[in-house]
Amino acid sequence: MSVGGERSRRFLAERARSMRASEIRELLKLTEGRDIISLAGGLPDPQTFPREELAEIARRVIIERGNQALQYSPTLGVTEFRRVLKEFLSSHGVTVNSGDDVIVTTGSQEALYLIAKVFVDPGDVVFVEAPTYLAALNAFRHYGAYFKSAPLDDEGMRTDVLEERIKEARREGRRLKLIYTIPTSQNPSGVTMSLERRKHLLELAEEYDLLVVEDDPYSFFTFEPVEAEPLKTLDKSGRVIYLGTLSKILSPGLRIGWALAESWVVTALELAKQSVDLHSSTLSQFIAAEAMRKGLVDKTVEKARTIYKEKRDVMLESLEEYFPNSCRWTRPVGGLFIFAYLPEGLDTKAMLPEAIERGVAYVPGASFFAEGGGENTMRLNFSYPTKEQIREGIRRLGLLIKEKVGG
Amino acid sequence: MSVGGERSRRFLAERARSMRASEIRELLKLTEGRDIISLAGGLPDPQTFPREELAEIARRVIIERGNQALQYSPTLGVTEFRRVLKEFLSSHGVTVNSGDDVIVTTGSQEALYLIAKVFVDPGDVVFVEAPTYLAALNAFRHYGAYFKSAPLDDEGMRTDVLEERIKEARREGRRLKLIYTIPTSQNPSGVTMSLERRKHLLELAEEYDLLVVEDDPYSFFTFEPVEAEPLKTLDKSGRVIYLGTLSKILSPGLRIGWALAESWVVTALELAKQSVDLHSSTLSQFIAAEAMRKGLVDKTVEKARTIYKEKRDVMLESLEEYFPNSCRWTRPVGGLFIFAYLPEGLDTKAMLPEAIERGVAYVPGASFFAEGGGENTMRLNFSYPTKEQIREGIRRLGLLIKEKVGG
Repeated sequence: MSVGGERSRRFLAERARSMRASEIRELLKLTEGRDIISLAGGLPDPQTFPREELAEIARRVIIERGNQALQYSPTLGVTEFRRVLKEFLSSHGVTVNSGDDVIVTTGSQEALYLIAKVFVDPGDVVFVEAPTYLAALNAFRHYGAYFKSAPLDDEGMRTDVLEERIKEARREGRRLKLIYTIPTSQNPSGVTMSLERRKHLLELAEEYDLLVVEDDPYSFFTFEPVEAEPLKTLDKSGRVIYLGTLSKILSPGLRIGWALAESWVVTALELAKQSVDLHSSTLSQFIAAEAMRKGLVDKTVEKARTIYKEKRDVMLESLEEYFPNSCRWTRPVGGLFIFAYLPEGLDTKAMLPEAIERGVAYVPGASFFAEGGGENTMRLNFSYPTKEQIREGIRRLGLLIKEKVGG
Repeated sequence: MSVGGERSRRFLAERARSMRASEIRELLKLTEGRDIISLAGGLPDPQTFPREELAEIARRVIIERGNQALQYSPTLGVTEFRRVLKEFLSSHGVTVNSGDDVIVTTGSQEALYLIAKVFVDPGDVVFVEAPTYLAALNAFRHYGAYFKSAPLDDEGMRTDVLEERIKEARREGRRLKLIYTIPTSQNPSGVTMSLERRKHLLELAEEYDLLVVEDDPYSFFTFEPVEAEPLKTLDKSGRVIYLGTLSKILSPGLRIGWALAESWVVTALELAKQSVDLHSSTLSQFIAAEAMRKGLVDKTVEKARTIYKEKRDVMLESLEEYFPNSCRWTRPVGGLFIFAYLPEGLDTKAMLPEAIERGVAYVPGASFFAEGGGENTMRLNFSYPTKEQIREGIRRLGLLIKEKVGG
C-alpha cells in the first residue's frame, strides 16, 4: 500500500467524521479510484458489457440508419424501439395490455421523476418499503410526498403493516396516492416479494384506489428462479406503472429506461417529459432496438447471471466467515446488493470513517429509511468489486465490527 | 398527388379548424411523412450529419473505452468531455473563467428545465424576448414564472423596452429573477442582437441584480460574420448562464447540451439533475468528446453553414417573389428560421387549416409571445425542407395570403 494511499485514506476519514447524509455520497465518490475497496457503489461489472457486439451495432446503425438515428426523435421514444421493447417485455412475462403504452426515459430515474411530477402533490402519501431506493425517495420528496413505510422481511414488503399504515393515513385525513415497490431483488435489501404478498398488495391498492409503481431493474437476471410474476402481470385493474431499464441488462451508459402503463398515464408522462428533456438519446434507442432484436440483451443477461451469482456467493461465504454471529444479512436471489443488520446500538454512519481508514467503504443504511431508523444497517455491493476485493473487504469490515461489539 | 394524400390533408385540415395551442403541435406532428411541405419543423438537415466519421468514432469508443463509455457516469458529465468542451468553447470565443464550471445536460432543454427548477419560484419575473423559444416558456411556466417581454427589431431585443419592463415590475413589487435571451440567430425570429444592445442588457442585469440565461444553439454556424461577442464573454460579474448544444453542430440524436456558469450555479444544477435523470448518456458524451477533439464538429459546422446559407437564400428569394408587399420578414444571419409578419388582422392560426389543405404547414407565431399578440406572425423553417420544397411551399403560402389580403 502506497503512502499516498495511506494519506488519502486519512484525509477521507477526516472528512467523514462530521458529515450530513448528502455528504456521504460525496465522500463515497472520492473513494473511487483510491486503494479503498468499495462495496458502496451500485455499478454493473463491465465484464458483462458486450463491447464487440455493441460496437458493431452502433457502427451499422449510424451508417445505415443515421438520418434517423442521429436526428431528433419523438418524446415518447423511437417508434421502432418502443415496438421491440413491448415484444421483449411480453416475451419475458410482463403483460402488455392492449390499452397500455410505453414511454422511453433517460434512465428509469427519469421515469420516477416524471411520475412524481405528474402524480405527487404536496402532502400526498407515498407508501414505500423500509428500506427503499434512495433516489426514488428524493424524486418523490422533491414534489412534497409524505412517506409511510412498511418494513421488509424475507418475503418482501410486510403488506400487513402496509395495510395498517394505509388505514392510519386515512384516519389522519391524508390524500393517499401511490405505493412504490421494487418487488424483485429489492434495492437496497436484495429481498424478493412472495406471490402471496404481491397479491395482497394489489388487493390493498384496489380497495384504497392507489396507483402502484413497480420498479423492476433486476427481475430479468435473477440467479435462482422466482415464482412470483410481476405486479404488472398480476394486476387486473390497470393501476400498475411498470418501470424498467437497460442499465443492468445491457449497459447503463446508454441511459435508457421505460415506463409501461395504461396509455392515459403514459400520455401524462409524455407531456411532463416534453419540458424536461424533449426526448432521450435517439442513438441509444436505435442501438437498444437492435440489441434486443438480435438477442444480445438475453445473451448479456445470461452472462451477468453467472458472474453475479458467483460474486454473491463469495460475499455470502465471506459474511459467514468474517462477520460476528450477532449480525444478520439478506440472501438475495438477484440484484446487486446484500443488506446487513448489525447489532442494535452500532451506528454504521459513525463507523464509516474507521472503515475507510482500513480501506473499505459501504453505504450506511439509515438514508434508505424514509421515516428514520436503520442506523445499524449497511448496503454491500457485490456486482462491481472483484471476488478478491469482496472477500478482503468483508474481512476488514468483519474485524472492525468484531472490535466494536467485542465479539 | 395521391388520393390518399388529398384525403389525409382534408382530415388534418378538419382537425385544425377548432384547436387549442397545444393541439397545433400535435397537428403538425401528423403532417410529417404526408405529402405536405412542412416549414413547421426545426430539424437539422440530415445531410449535415457526418455519418461515416461518427460510425467509426462510436465503434472505436465502444471497443477501446467500453468499460467507461458503457458505464454509469457522473451527474456533472464525463470528466474528459467536460474538459474538451471547455477548450472547444474557449477556442470559439466563449470565455470560460477560472471560477466557472460546466454541466452536461440531456439536450439544452434539460438545462432550461434545471434552471427553472433551481431559480424560479412562483411569481418570479422572467424577462423574455417577444417572440421567444416556446419550450423555454414552458419550462419557466412550469415553475410559476411571471413573464414580462420586450419586442425584437433588427438589432435584437429592444433593451430600452426591457428597461421599462424591469422598472415596471419593480414598481409592482415583484421579485425580479432573470433575463432569458437567444442573442444570436434567435428562435423563432432569426434576429441577432447588436453589440450595443448586448452591453445594455448586461448593464441592466448588473443594475437590477438579475441572472442572464444566454441560450446559444446557433452562434457557431452563422452564415455571415457576427461582430457581437457572446454575453458570457462580455459579462464582467459572473451573472450569465451560457447554454449550448450539439444538436445543430453535430447531431441532435446524441441528445447532449450543456450549461457553463459560475461553479456555484453549476453545483445547484448538478443537485437538481441528480433527481431528474442522474446523468446524461455516457456513450453520447464519449462520442462527442472524440468528435470535438478530432475537429469533426468544426467540419460539420462548415458543411452546415454552406447548406443552410443556400436554403436561407432560396427562402428569402421566394418570399420576395411570392409574398405580397404588405408582408415583412426577418433576414437571419444564422439559425434555422425566418419569421414573417403578415398584415394586421390576418390570423395565422385560423389560416393554418387552409394552408394544410393546400399542402404546406408552418407554425403560427402567437404561441411564441409570452404576453399575447403575434396573431399575424408565422415561423418558417428553412433547414429541413429541400430547396424545391421551400420554393413551392412559399409559393403556395404566398398565393393563400394574397387571396386573404386581396393583393
